[in-house]
Amino acid sequence: MEGKEEDVRLGANKFSERQPIGTSAQTDKDYKEPPPAPLFEPGELQSWSFYRAGIAEFVATFLFLYITVLTVMGVSQSKTKCTTVGVQGIAWAFGGMIFALVYCTAGISGGHINPAVTFGLFLILAPLPIGFAVFLVHLATIPITGTGINPARSLGAAIMYNRDHAWDDQWIFWVGPFIGAALAAVYHQLIIRAIPFKARA
Amino acid sequence: MEGKEEDVRLGANKFSERQPIGTSAQTDKDYKEPPPAPLFEPGELQSWSFYRAGIAEFVATFLFLYITVLTVMGVSQSKTKCTTVGVQGIAWAFGGMIFALVYCTAGISGGHINPAVTFGLFLILAPLPIGFAVFLVHLATIPITGTGINPARSLGAAIMYNRDHAWDDQWIFWVGPFIGAALAAVYHQLIIRAIPFKARA
Amino acid sequence: MEGKEEDVRLGANKFSERQPIGTSAQTDKDYKEPPPAPLFEPGELQSWSFYRAGIAEFVATFLFLYITVLTVMGVSQSKTKCTTVGVQGIAWAFGGMIFALVYCTAGISGGHINPAVTFGLFLILAPLPIGFAVFLVHLATIPITGTGINPARSLGAAIMYNRDHAWDDQWIFWVGPFIGAALAAVYHQLIIRAIPFKARA
Amino acid sequence: MEGKEEDVRLGANKFSERQPIGTSAQTDKDYKEPPPAPLFEPGELQSWSFYRAGIAEFVATFLFLYITVLTVMGVSQSKTKCTTVGVQGIAWAFGGMIFALVYCTAGISGGHINPAVTFGLFLILAPLPIGFAVFLVHLATIPITGTGINPARSLGAAIMYNRDHAWDDQWIFWVGPFIGAALAAVYHQLIIRAIPFKARA
Repeated sequence: MEGKEEDVRLGANKFSERQPIGTSAQTDKDYKEPPPAPLFEPGELQSWSFYRAGIAEFVATFLFLYITVLTVMGVSQSKTKCTTVGVQGIAWAFGGMIFALVYCTAGISGGHINPAVTFGLFLILAPLPIGFAVFLVHLATIPITGTGINPARSLGAAIMYNRDHAWDDQWIFWVGPFIGAALAAVYHQLIIRAIPFKARA
Repeated sequence: MEGKEEDVRLGANKFSERQPIGTSAQTDKDYKEPPPAPLFEPGELQSWSFYRAGIAEFVATFLFLYITVLTVMGVSQSKTKCTTVGVQGIAWAFGGMIFALVYCTAGISGGHINPAVTFGLFLILAPLPIGFAVFLVHLATIPITGTGINPARSLGAAIMYNRDHAWDDQWIFWVGPFIGAALAAVYHQLIIRAIPFKARA
Repeated sequence: MEGKEEDVRLGANKFSERQPIGTSAQTDKDYKEPPPAPLFEPGELQSWSFYRAGIAEFVATFLFLYITVLTVMGVSQSKTKCTTVGVQGIAWAFGGMIFALVYCTAGISGGHINPAVTFGLFLILAPLPIGFAVFLVHLATIPITGTGINPARSLGAAIMYNRDHAWDDQWIFWVGPFIGAALAAVYHQLIIRAIPFKARA
Repeated sequence: MEGKEEDVRLGANKFSERQPIGTSAQTDKDYKEPPPAPLFEPGELQSWSFYRAGIAEFVATFLFLYITVLTVMGVSQSKTKCTTVGVQGIAWAFGGMIFALVYCTAGISGGHINPAVTFGLFLILAPLPIGFAVFLVHLATIPITGTGINPARSLGAAIMYNRDHAWDDQWIFWVGPFIGAALAAVYHQLIIRAIPFKARA
C-alpha cells in the first residue's frame, strides 16, 4: 500500500467508510470493499438469531407505536395546546424512540424498525444522529402531512384507527418512504462508496 | 470454555451483552456466561463499598425528587401555562435527571434510583438511552396518569404531600412498575439472552 | 495486589474513580490515590499555558453571558410568551452553553467557567452530563429565584444592569453556590473517594 | 513513514486535532505545531475524492435548507403559535440538522456546510457541540435578526423568496459571519495554538 503504487490510485476511495467522528481525511489507508452479503440464506430459518431478531423488531415497533401514538393523543385531545407537550413534543417522541430503540436493537436485529430502511439497505449510523434526523423530519413536516416516514407505523395506526380518510392517503406513506430509501441507496452507492476510476479489489 | 463442553450450554447467549453501538450481529466471538452473582453476601455488610453505594443511591434519589418536584410545582402553580416550561419541560426534568444521575452513580451503586429496576435486575444501559426512555414515557403518559414509573419517587412525593387522593392510587404506581420490570426481566431472559434451538459454533 | 493481602483490604475503595460509563462494579482493581496537586505554583506565572487558560476562561464566560442574556432578553421583552423560546428555551441556553464551552475549554483551562466550581475543586465530568445538570437546575428554579448558580455570571449581569434590586439580592448568588460547592466537595471527599478503614498509600 | 522521510512530508498534518474530551492541560507533552497545509493542490482536480466532497456538501446544504425552511414555514404560516413547534423548534431544526449533517459528511468533505466556516479554517469539533452551538445561537438571536450565520443558506433562501426586503439586508449575513470567522481564526491562531515564549520542538 506504500510506494509508487500510490500514484496509480488517483481517484480511489481513500477512506474507510466509517471513520471515527471528526477524524480528518488525511489517512493513507485504502478503501476495502466488503464482499456483498446475500439478502437471505435458507440456513437462517434454522437459527435462533433469525427468530430473535424478528421478535426484537416486533417488540421495538410495538413500543414505538405505543409511545408515539399516546403522545399524539395527549396533544390532539387537549382543548388548549399550551398545556400539552405540543408539536415539538411529538417530534421528540418519534426521534427519541428511534434513538433508544436503535440503540437497544442494533446488536440483535440491526435496528431498522422501518421497512423502508430495510429496503434501502441503509447502513446503520450511530443511534443519536438517526434519532435526531427522525426528530427533525417531524419538526418540519408534521404541519404539512402529519409525517409518515415509516410504512409499518402508518399501516399499524391506520388498522387501529380504521376510518376512510386514514386509508385514502395510505399509499403516499408507502410510496414516499420507499422512493426516498431507493434514492438514498443510489446516492450511497454512486457517490459515497463509488470508486469510478478503478476496478475494485 | 472451548471444546465439547460448549454443546452442553444450550440456552446460553452467543453475544457479548453489550456490543459497541451499531455493530451488527455478525461477529463469531462466542459468549462467555458470567457466573451468577449472589443477590446478597453477608461479607458486604463489612465493606465500605456497600454503605457508599447506599449513600450514593440516597443522595441521587434526593436530588431526583428535589429537581423534578420543583419543576412540576413551577408548572402547576403558574396561572398561564405559556410562561412555564410546560409538560415537555417536566418530561425533560425526569429524563435528564435520570441521565445525569445514572451517569454519576453507575460506577458506585449501579445507578438504579428505582426499586422496580432493581427488582427486574435490569442490565444497565448507557445513561443517555435510559434518560431518553424516561423522558419519552413522561411525554406520553403525563396527560393520562401523571406518570409514576418509580415507586420510590411516588412514595416520597405522597409522604410529603400526604392527602387522601395521593394515597388512594398509590398502589398502581407500585404494581405497574413491578409488573413491567418482571415482564422486562422475562423478555430479556427468554428472548435476548436465550439460544434454545441450537448448540454453539 | 493478589493473594491474602486482599483480606486485609476490606473497605478499601475498589473502584477507579472514573470507570467508563456503564461498566459494572465487579473489577478487582484497587484504588490508587493520586498525589495531591498544589493549588498554585509560582512557576506558573512564567508559563504561557497559565495565561492561555485565563484568556480561554474569559472568552468562554463572555460567550456564555452573551448568548444567555440575549436569550433571556428575547423572552422577557416579548409581549406574548407563546411566540418566544419560553422558559424552557432559557434553560436550554444555559445548559447548552455550558456543554459546548466545557467541551471546548476542558483541555485548555479545565472548563470551570464558574468560580464556585473552582472553589469546590469539582472533578470535571464529561461535558454532556454537566450541561444537562445546568439545564435541569434552570428548568426547576427559574420560576422561584431566576436561578443564579454561577457567581461570575450573576456579578456580570448585575454590573451591566446596575439597578438597586439587582444588587440587593446579589449576596445570595454568591453564598448559595459556594455553600453548595463546599457541600459537594465534602461529599466527594468523605463518600465517593473516602477509604475509612485504611490509611492511604 | 518514520525516519528522515518525515522531513519531506511538509503539509502532512502531524497533530491529532482533538484531545479526548475532558483531558486536562497538565500533560507533559509539548505542543507540536503542524506544518501548514496548502489551501489547494492542482492534483485534487483529478481525484474523485474532490468531486465527491463537492457533491456531499451540495447534498448536505440542500437537505439543510429543505428541513429548516419547511420548519420556519410551518411556524410562520400558522395563525396561533401555540400549535406550532415555536421558535425553540426552529432553533432545534438548525442545530439538529448541523449535528446530523456534520456527523454524516465529516469524513467525506470535512462537514463545513457553511462558507464562513471554510473561510475561517475552523477546526472541526465533534458534531454534537457544533450542533448545540448552532442551536443556541438561534435561540438567542432569532427574535433580533432572524439569525443568518450561514451565508450559503441566507443566499439560497433569498434567491427562492426573491423580494426586495430579503435582498436589502443580505449583506449583513455575509459580512457578519465572515468577520466572526476571521476573529475565530485569529483567536485560535494567537491564543489556542500559539506558544510565544518558547521555541518549537
